[in-house]
Amino acid sequence: MTATTTVFDRIESRVRSYSRSFPALFDKARNATLYGADGREYIDFLAGCSSLNYGHNDPDMQAALVDYIRADGIAHGLDMFTGAKQDFLTAYERIILKPRGMDYRLMFTGPTGTNAVEAALKLARKATGRTTVIAFTNGFHGMSLGALAATGNAGKREGAGVDLPGVHRAPFEGYFGPGVDTADMLEQMLDDPSGGIGAPAAILVEPVQGEGGLHAASAPWMQKIERIARRHGALFIVDDIQAGCGRVGTFFSFEGLGVSPDIVTQAKSLSGMGLPFALTLFKPEYDIWKPGEHNGTFRGNNHAFVTARVALEKFWHDDSFAASVRARGEGLRTRLAAIADRHGMSLRGRGMMQGIDTGDGATAARICALCFENGLIIETSGGHDEVVKILCPLTIEDRLLNRGLDILDAAFAEVLGSAAARTAAE
Amino acid sequence: MTATTTVFDRIESRVRSYSRSFPALFDKARNATLYGADGREYIDFLAGCSSLNYGHNDPDMQAALVDYIRADGIAHGLDMFTGAKQDFLTAYERIILKPRGMDYRLMFTGPTGTNAVEAALKLARKATGRTTVIAFTNGFHGMSLGALAATGNAGKREGAGVDLPGVHRAPFEGYFGPGVDTADMLEQMLDDPSGGIGAPAAILVEPVQGEGGLHAASAPWMQKIERIARRHGALFIVDDIQAGCGRVGTFFSFEGLGVSPDIVTQAKSLSGMGLPFALTLFKPEYDIWKPGEHNGTFRGNNHAFVTARVALEKFWHDDSFAASVRARGEGLRTRLAAIADRHGMSLRGRGMMQGIDTGDGATAARICALCFENGLIIETSGGHDEVVKILCPLTIEDRLLNRGLDILDAAFAEVLGSAAARTAAE
Amino acid sequence: MTATTTVFDRIESRVRSYSRSFPALFDKARNATLYGADGREYIDFLAGCSSLNYGHNDPDMQAALVDYIRADGIAHGLDMFTGAKQDFLTAYERIILKPRGMDYRLMFTGPTGTNAVEAALKLARKATGRTTVIAFTNGFHGMSLGALAATGNAGKREGAGVDLPGVHRAPFEGYFGPGVDTADMLEQMLDDPSGGIGAPAAILVEPVQGEGGLHAASAPWMQKIERIARRHGALFIVDDIQAGCGRVGTFFSFEGLGVSPDIVTQAKSLSGMGLPFALTLFKPEYDIWKPGEHNGTFRGNNHAFVTARVALEKFWHDDSFAASVRARGEGLRTRLAAIADRHGMSLRGRGMMQGIDTGDGATAARICALCFENGLIIETSGGHDEVVKILCPLTIEDRLLNRGLDILDAAFAEVLGSAAARTAAE
Amino acid sequence: MTATTTVFDRIESRVRSYSRSFPALFDKARNATLYGADGREYIDFLAGCSSLNYGHNDPDMQAALVDYIRADGIAHGLDMFTGAKQDFLTAYERIILKPRGMDYRLMFTGPTGTNAVEAALKLARKATGRTTVIAFTNGFHGMSLGALAATGNAGKREGAGVDLPGVHRAPFEGYFGPGVDTADMLEQMLDDPSGGIGAPAAILVEPVQGEGGLHAASAPWMQKIERIARRHGALFIVDDIQAGCGRVGTFFSFEGLGVSPDIVTQAKSLSGMGLPFALTLFKPEYDIWKPGEHNGTFRGNNHAFVTARVALEKFWHDDSFAASVRARGEGLRTRLAAIADRHGMSLRGRGMMQGIDTGDGATAARICALCFENGLIIETSGGHDEVVKILCPLTIEDRLLNRGLDILDAAFAEVLGSAAARTAAE
Repeated sequence: MTATTTVFDRIESRVRSYSRSFPALFDKARNATLYGADGREYIDFLAGCSSLNYGHNDPDMQAALVDYIRADGIAHGLDMFTGAKQDFLTAYERIILKPRGMDYRLMFTGPTGTNAVEAALKLARKATGRTTVIAFTNGFHGMSLGALAATGNAGKREGAGVDLPGVHRAPFEGYFGPGVDTADMLEQMLDDPSGGIGAPAAILVEPVQGEGGLHAASAPWMQKIERIARRHGALFIVDDIQAGCGRVGTFFSFEGLGVSPDIVTQAKSLSGMGLPFALTLFKPEYDIWKPGEHNGTFRGNNHAFVTARVALEKFWHDDSFAASVRARGEGLRTRLAAIADRHGMSLRGRGMMQGIDTGDGATAARICALCFENGLIIETSGGHDEVVKILCPLTIEDRLLNRGLDILDAAFAEVLGSAAARTAAE
Repeated sequence: MTATTTVFDRIESRVRSYSRSFPALFDKARNATLYGADGREYIDFLAGCSSLNYGHNDPDMQAALVDYIRADGIAHGLDMFTGAKQDFLTAYERIILKPRGMDYRLMFTGPTGTNAVEAALKLARKATGRTTVIAFTNGFHGMSLGALAATGNAGKREGAGVDLPGVHRAPFEGYFGPGVDTADMLEQMLDDPSGGIGAPAAILVEPVQGEGGLHAASAPWMQKIERIARRHGALFIVDDIQAGCGRVGTFFSFEGLGVSPDIVTQAKSLSGMGLPFALTLFKPEYDIWKPGEHNGTFRGNNHAFVTARVALEKFWHDDSFAASVRARGEGLRTRLAAIADRHGMSLRGRGMMQGIDTGDGATAARICALCFENGLIIETSGGHDEVVKILCPLTIEDRLLNRGLDILDAAFAEVLGSAAARTAAE
Repeated sequence: MTATTTVFDRIESRVRSYSRSFPALFDKARNATLYGADGREYIDFLAGCSSLNYGHNDPDMQAALVDYIRADGIAHGLDMFTGAKQDFLTAYERIILKPRGMDYRLMFTGPTGTNAVEAALKLARKATGRTTVIAFTNGFHGMSLGALAATGNAGKREGAGVDLPGVHRAPFEGYFGPGVDTADMLEQMLDDPSGGIGAPAAILVEPVQGEGGLHAASAPWMQKIERIARRHGALFIVDDIQAGCGRVGTFFSFEGLGVSPDIVTQAKSLSGMGLPFALTLFKPEYDIWKPGEHNGTFRGNNHAFVTARVALEKFWHDDSFAASVRARGEGLRTRLAAIADRHGMSLRGRGMMQGIDTGDGATAARICALCFENGLIIETSGGHDEVVKILCPLTIEDRLLNRGLDILDAAFAEVLGSAAARTAAE
Repeated sequence: MTATTTVFDRIESRVRSYSRSFPALFDKARNATLYGADGREYIDFLAGCSSLNYGHNDPDMQAALVDYIRADGIAHGLDMFTGAKQDFLTAYERIILKPRGMDYRLMFTGPTGTNAVEAALKLARKATGRTTVIAFTNGFHGMSLGALAATGNAGKREGAGVDLPGVHRAPFEGYFGPGVDTADMLEQMLDDPSGGIGAPAAILVEPVQGEGGLHAASAPWMQKIERIARRHGALFIVDDIQAGCGRVGTFFSFEGLGVSPDIVTQAKSLSGMGLPFALTLFKPEYDIWKPGEHNGTFRGNNHAFVTARVALEKFWHDDSFAASVRARGEGLRTRLAAIADRHGMSLRGRGMMQGIDTGDGATAARICALCFENGLIIETSGGHDEVVKILCPLTIEDRLLNRGLDILDAAFAEVLGSAAARTAAE
């Protein structure tokens, strides 16, 4: 790819990252397959970091979007009323909110996850008149200053160039091992007038920490965190950007955990087709914004309204898709457990958001690099990038899922075999 | 529209704003015309707040995008190498950078203006090891916490719910009237060891303040600000999000002002078709990011790469489009000056980003409301929303431009005539 | 005291606090006895919150100060060289530093504890180029914004009216009970690249938390905290303001704990006679201040230089005084243990800084109020004001110490007897 | 002094500053005369930076303090009621407040100026629920983080090692020359909804900027600033720490300026004898503290209560002392004007707080150094240390005042003569 990449080398900033792990030029994509400009095919176990839960270029979304564009459908409408938006809202109400008995208001923020988180944090602070947000170890919430303050990753935080105030960092579930209840710890500090944290505006949590190593919170822990938030007058915010939209077998990742968040953030797979789109949901009593108090040029991406509506109608009109994801998640667990067992490693995550903790970043990186050589796109996760993470489209063909897992299995064997060989040789 | 809007009333957050000024349901749009669901036509003098400089649904962009989608072109590719991105970069280098003798690196941030500004501020702080950013009265830079700190508008700032540190507010050119050189003032405070501002990381300025009332900086003032930045080791950042992409008759709004910014932010019309897309440009010596140090799921919107490339090729391959914009800007000035003179008001702005300062927000609001009744979409600008702002597509048909200005002229006459009548009657 | 207190009611701010617990007018004091204007005598178990470790008006300090004043000794000398300062420094070097093998530089900050802490935090941040300070639950470090950020008490923090950034709050030793090692927890979070705390400038700790409930750190925990600080490039700061100057049986409260702090703060009993005086000690490699970079009008209180020197010469020329304090501390423990046992309560603290945890603030307040009625001045401590704290002069006459403890014993019996009675009656 | 200073070199921090300008060892002092350990006499034109307005060791204060100490008067009483405090309050009410028709509450903060400023800022933020404080170029308010944020001096600010948020810096009167009204500028920015400053909690101003170059505010400007504060719901705070206690010919420096501050800070000469002592005054409606919400070990220094009371009774029972200061201020102005004129320089300040602007710090430093060689202690002021500042005791003997001015005059002549000579020679 030497010749073709020169323009990237010449004028694209060195901040680019995924193109370093996957140094190929890609042209086309369909469901779980990416096509290189050289015609090579790759199985996609990354899916835009869970932005492509329904795969690349779902034909129904594709068709609807093409029709919309050809009919001069509005592409950009600020936050004016459009037919595309009306249809999306109607579908969201009918397919998502109503059947779940949820009463939320929808706020279209700038179409990125970090914008949705910024809006959530602003709203919580505005509603409570407080400033401190409790966020967790390994949490990942975005790159703009408000969201970055809640993000745990040191490398990301250092990019800020300024202090990131307003957040107290608490240990996520299981952070200190199985015997230590970190929710109780948080509660003790908050209950203590000399605990030194200050009355919180919000507790912000990901049910499954997608970037932070696939730590999945249990229902009891989530319920306890919610109860702590309520007791202390804080809003309970679920960041569902990576784990939502079906990734763990339910539309919202917190369904089934027995909680009712005050605010929910969505992005990534929300548009269905990988288009920029984000949403902040909140209970009606918190809809205290003044008109335009939080705005943004691209709030409400109309192309995304179209594809997102199709996604809802196609995949969420009944439970069959969700059920299939849950079933595939079980299958994935079996398959991964076998690999992990073979190498004395442990599993992380849930649903179609699982991975293997290899123990260190170098090992995980070697495995992923080897996978790429063999046509599989897969990435790491975790504070030390120690987890090999499977994030394939939920719609992936069985054949490709199995083929990808075979490649993965072989890569583990080769890397760890040779590691074992090296260890034995020493 | 009672029946059709109920879903908006039921579940959309009250934060929505433009739908209050323009309470119609829109379906389609082509160039400068918006079509209501009821078939009514509106002339668009807002153009997505300058996100639609080339009008709605430019047929060439439309066609290219449809072709791309139908060919299974990659919609979402994180920051991997794609053909669409390669073609955009190549076009940007050839059509924009080379002819202007500019040497910049391109960073694709999250696809909104505020993301681009966040990246710019981070980079300036990282490069200088300093934290203070100088921003100006009436400046508007975005809604996420980092960018919001630089934004002057009180209503937006209060939405944060937290303090917004790291910014010193300085008066923009002309803020204290024509006799007072605000650049000299800034320089005096920075030169003074007891001036109390602290060594700045950056000076952040809009050549024309789009949201802040169409104040346009002069070349000498901009040059002085740049020189102050250099003397004090600060980066000189131009926020070109609203005024760029041809709006004032050049691709960058600072062309012709004799400055060479260290960092430039772009968004709004960059995609050409109103798709979410943003870019932070900087000189090569500031490309000091670590890979992934600032990232984002939707950085590099591939659909936007396609349309943005078409926009560059179609409108910027030579100076003819820019020249036509400059000519139309002159015409607009003549027409607006006549209206303003008639009512003893003054003009603001430059190029196709001009307006009339009505003196107060209530008057401007009445004028805009009356325009809407008569089929013209137009908005206000300024700290008191006192400026009626013309932001029509640069490609607007002459007939519609004139028709829109006629509607505007009549609205001024009616509102101010009746105001004059009322004043006379008292 | 109705008539005499009117000026207090008329013009002193309601912020005053101790005069509410002890509503008498005091005139004179000698060692452990306070004399009311009405001639009534009170035993002092508060000792200016440990500012009067050598009692009120030690005759040798008194005489030296009177001589100094009558000889026109300099009272205020900014930070110029004075004989009084020279003599203090010489004595401090000879009596304190040399015998302990300590190599520290002395910085005279403004003469209050909070000033000393502010200087310590500034220095740590300046030395490391970092901003985050780790402080502990129940820590108390002062009321100015920098020190207050490190203070845990919610009531004090809320007085700020602004956020208090720059501090991560960690649990003190034993905070989660005996089985949980909070130092290990801190280390795990700091070691974790996604722990979200950020590289610390300093870890700030009180060996015994005087205001926070008399929690006393063990040697192993302190050593672990010091080691964590070193491993992470942070300065290890001991705030010895309340526990120092002999209170726990050694000049510094950290002597014997096997640590070597980079910075130490002193105030309270440092002057020996209750005069405002404070000191920040640090290792020579951290003496990186520019001249005057941290200053203050009253830094170096010359009257205090005189009395502080006498205190060093009189009490610290050999170990006899310290040994007597340790012995008395043992006696105090025996006596308090008996009271605590009788009521099923537990002991807190060490040396002459011990107390009984009554379990709740209301009980402790009733006990202290009853003591005052019976001529004993004693206060509470802890997040809930739940600890009755003994802080008598280290020089208190045996007779008065026993008499005070008798009063205390009786008050516990009366308050808890009636509590028991009430409980039985219900 | 080589031998005698070794302990300073060995163990005192290099942060010390005045001992660098005046490298002598001082022993005693009486009124305006400092005595070196070697018997040498120095005239004191520094007076502890205005902490010794009544000279060193005033015999009446000296006698009262000695009597108090010998009678076992309470030295340290936290904030309990003491006779010394009662007498001070009574005198302050009778001598200061009543005759001036002032209704203020007195809050004894930690006994340094920066503590008093911290309390003032906390109170203003607490009372308004806002955070932004407006402070001025060249303002000096203290070294702890809250007060330092309001201080303009870059060298001091950099010592913080952290950002100093919560303050907007505005230009002091005359900052941009005589034709520019900086109060109007501030008002315009505050009135503007896009001015970007935010609703202020307080405006904090020194009537004469003691450290910042002796800029003296006029009555109209001060009144305008007060009016702006009122209009915007901000508290008007006068920092009277250096300019108060008679320095400009009235007890408060703002007397005669036609303003009525909501909060006033006092320290420096308040004790009369140079003892640490500080006070924050505020109108009764702002006495909203909770008991102990802002506290401090040394609040209410009882020795200082004694001497401060004597100072009030001796110097402020009628206007004669103040009148004499005003008269001497006139004389000083005449004398300094002659020197300034001779060298084409300008005067700064008012009352007994005047100086000559030499134009640069090097010149001023040479003049002061030459004065010291000739037995006069005098310092510089201003952002560039460009002002030679006269701050002698208000009680200085005429003979010594004249002698000091002669030395000063000669030093100007010698330094500037040689400068002129050098200039001519070039």
